[in-house]
Amino acid sequence: MSNSNQLKDSFQKTTYRLSQNGPRNVAVLQEALQSVDPNLESDIYGSGKIIEDFESKIAKFLGKEKAVFFPSGTMAQQIALRIWADRKNNNKIAYHPLSHLEIHEQDGLKELQQIELLLLGTAERVPTIEDIRNLDESVSCVLLELPQREIGGQLPTFAELEEISQYCRENGIQLHLDGARLWEITPYYKKSEKEISALFDSVYVSFYKGIGGIAGAILAGDANFTDEAKLWKRRYGGDLISLYPYIISANYYFDKRIGKMEQYYEAAKDLARRFNACEGVKTVPEVPVSNMFHVHFEKPAEAVEPILTKIHAETGVGCSGYLQSKPSDTCGFELSVGDAVAEIPAEQLDRVFELLQI
Amino acid sequence: MSNSNQLKDSFQKTTYRLSQNGPRNVAVLQEALQSVDPNLESDIYGSGKIIEDFESKIAKFLGKEKAVFFPSGTMAQQIALRIWADRKNNNKIAYHPLSHLEIHEQDGLKELQQIELLLLGTAERVPTIEDIRNLDESVSCVLLELPQREIGGQLPTFAELEEISQYCRENGIQLHLDGARLWEITPYYKKSEKEISALFDSVYVSFYKGIGGIAGAILAGDANFTDEAKLWKRRYGGDLISLYPYIISANYYFDKRIGKMEQYYEAAKDLARRFNACEGVKTVPEVPVSNMFHVHFEKPAEAVEPILTKIHAETGVGCSGYLQSKPSDTCGFELSVGDAVAEIPAEQLDRVFELLQI
Repeated sequence: MSNSNQLKDSFQKTTYRLSQNGPRNVAVLQEALQSVDPNLESDIYGSGKIIEDFESKIAKFLGKEKAVFFPSGTMAQQIALRIWADRKNNNKIAYHPLSHLEIHEQDGLKELQQIELLLLGTAERVPTIEDIRNLDESVSCVLLELPQREIGGQLPTFAELEEISQYCRENGIQLHLDGARLWEITPYYKKSEKEISALFDSVYVSFYKGIGGIAGAILAGDANFTDEAKLWKRRYGGDLISLYPYIISANYYFDKRIGKMEQYYEAAKDLARRFNACEGVKTVPEVPVSNMFHVHFEKPAEAVEPILTKIHAETGVGCSGYLQSKPSDTCGFELSVGDAVAEIPAEQLDRVFELLQI
Repeated sequence: MSNSNQLKDSFQKTTYRLSQNGPRNVAVLQEALQSVDPNLESDIYGSGKIIEDFESKIAKFLGKEKAVFFPSGTMAQQIALRIWADRKNNNKIAYHPLSHLEIHEQDGLKELQQIELLLLGTAERVPTIEDIRNLDESVSCVLLELPQREIGGQLPTFAELEEISQYCRENGIQLHLDGARLWEITPYYKKSEKEISALFDSVYVSFYKGIGGIAGAILAGDANFTDEAKLWKRRYGGDLISLYPYIISANYYFDKRIGKMEQYYEAAKDLARRFNACEGVKTVPEVPVSNMFHVHFEKPAEAVEPILTKIHAETGVGCSGYLQSKPSDTCGFELSVGDAVAEIPAEQLDRVFELLQI
């Protein structure tokens, strides 16, 4: 067995976790269904009370005219970009070099939509208005991901966002929000989801990151936009006869956790402080601006794995089941704070950081 | 309120139903989850015991090397056809004029995959080997739907199927099975799913028609084919972090109903006989070859609606919630037999046919 499997195994045996909201097991769905009336009718191909009510609820919450529920964000965002490309008759779109669409979707956007991508700025930082101004070619749409997940969940300032939004409006560029983790940034910005969404023409949000549902996404915008999105949802095979398992759980965990984002944010800042106090460890960003951050170690994975494995075994607190190798013989993992961290007894959490000397 | 809404309302108030397996409500999912261990881990982006076990089970059942679970058949079939088009470097595909891909998917196959479609034969009958021989252009793949849903679930003979399969193999044409209702035709052919699938290079099956699950599909074929299908599943946004709500229910209702297809087939033939004995009513096909058939009335919907509405109110047995207008001032509806029909008390079912005089 490799060290890497040892780390994973030791993580899976832990009772407590720094990240997330608890195990992704069938209990998550069973809990959401517990108090649902068995006679509640399924949605049928995008229609019916169960889906329409949730779409209206989230549209209102985001301050958009309409919303469409999708099985996945991958599908929702490709469709959003296609609609804006068609609207502007320009198939060029710009986004960050580490956008989900660029690195996690097997080039779906290019293969299915023949969209040409321009990369905004450089991988290690968030895009700026200068990056947009300096694009070589005119684009129909700019996609911004808030927070920028692959670099630890970094954010531009809200003033910068407003400036970008204004620039795009003045220059006929549609602005799309990859808001997979939108809920999680409201405490830092001290702005509501509605205030943030108002800067964008279309907004995608997810229900299984901070919210902790099973899967599913919402795409919101004006009625013309969402009508077209529904057409594409059918074309993609996303207009399932029944999406209610995802909708019910999205709604249940939205209600359960939407008010806890401040708590997750504060806990993330606290954890980051404690990581940064350890020898050979730093977080990116140093001070989190959401519930997430990356933990970087100054040594390679082979050196860090036994240390984390030992921490898992000795404290019962799971830090991470994997380590991603990084340049210059370093490594790291991602941490997203949810309900789980609050369950760790204080002395066991203290012990984690006592043992964490790299 | 129009007559049409009256019909729908009267149908919704009935206790018994001729079609399907009972209401599509949340109880369907709750029942499937009832005996599942809450600690069972979710599938994660297509991996994990819960999805891999089910894929293996169905691959084996269909006699194919591998299988991939998809959220929808729309997605699965577009992908199958794209793979065969790529394999043959020929983007022309042939199918029946009323294929699901042609009439229910908003041209997804053309819009997303730039596939060119040739129509096989004519709308009112199943395709023949002559239709394939007479195609104007060479195609990479032929899709056959068994049974042909939009014409009441008609089928070619098994000998004709074998002939088509042999012809396609000899002529380098891939043969894909739209087996949304594959389970339902085994009693008529007196062949197993495996024997039918053996005639095809790739097979799609569904879990919410005869099986009565929530949603979901399987695409099966050789390992190269399914590896490529997984790549496209990611591109389409179908590689959800968790598909287990559909997998668990598909597996549960598969086990519950796969042995009942003979019973549904016999009940369908019995019902069709009774419809055909009524004045002004006939079924297509006259003798069903699966669990489904279409009921045709010799009068327009306006004339038939009050009769069905009355039957619903008087017998408590729901025949149909809609009537589709047909050429020459006639109309009809589709009937798919599942568990529900067996629950109708004999005298109430008799009364339906006594009242059904058009």
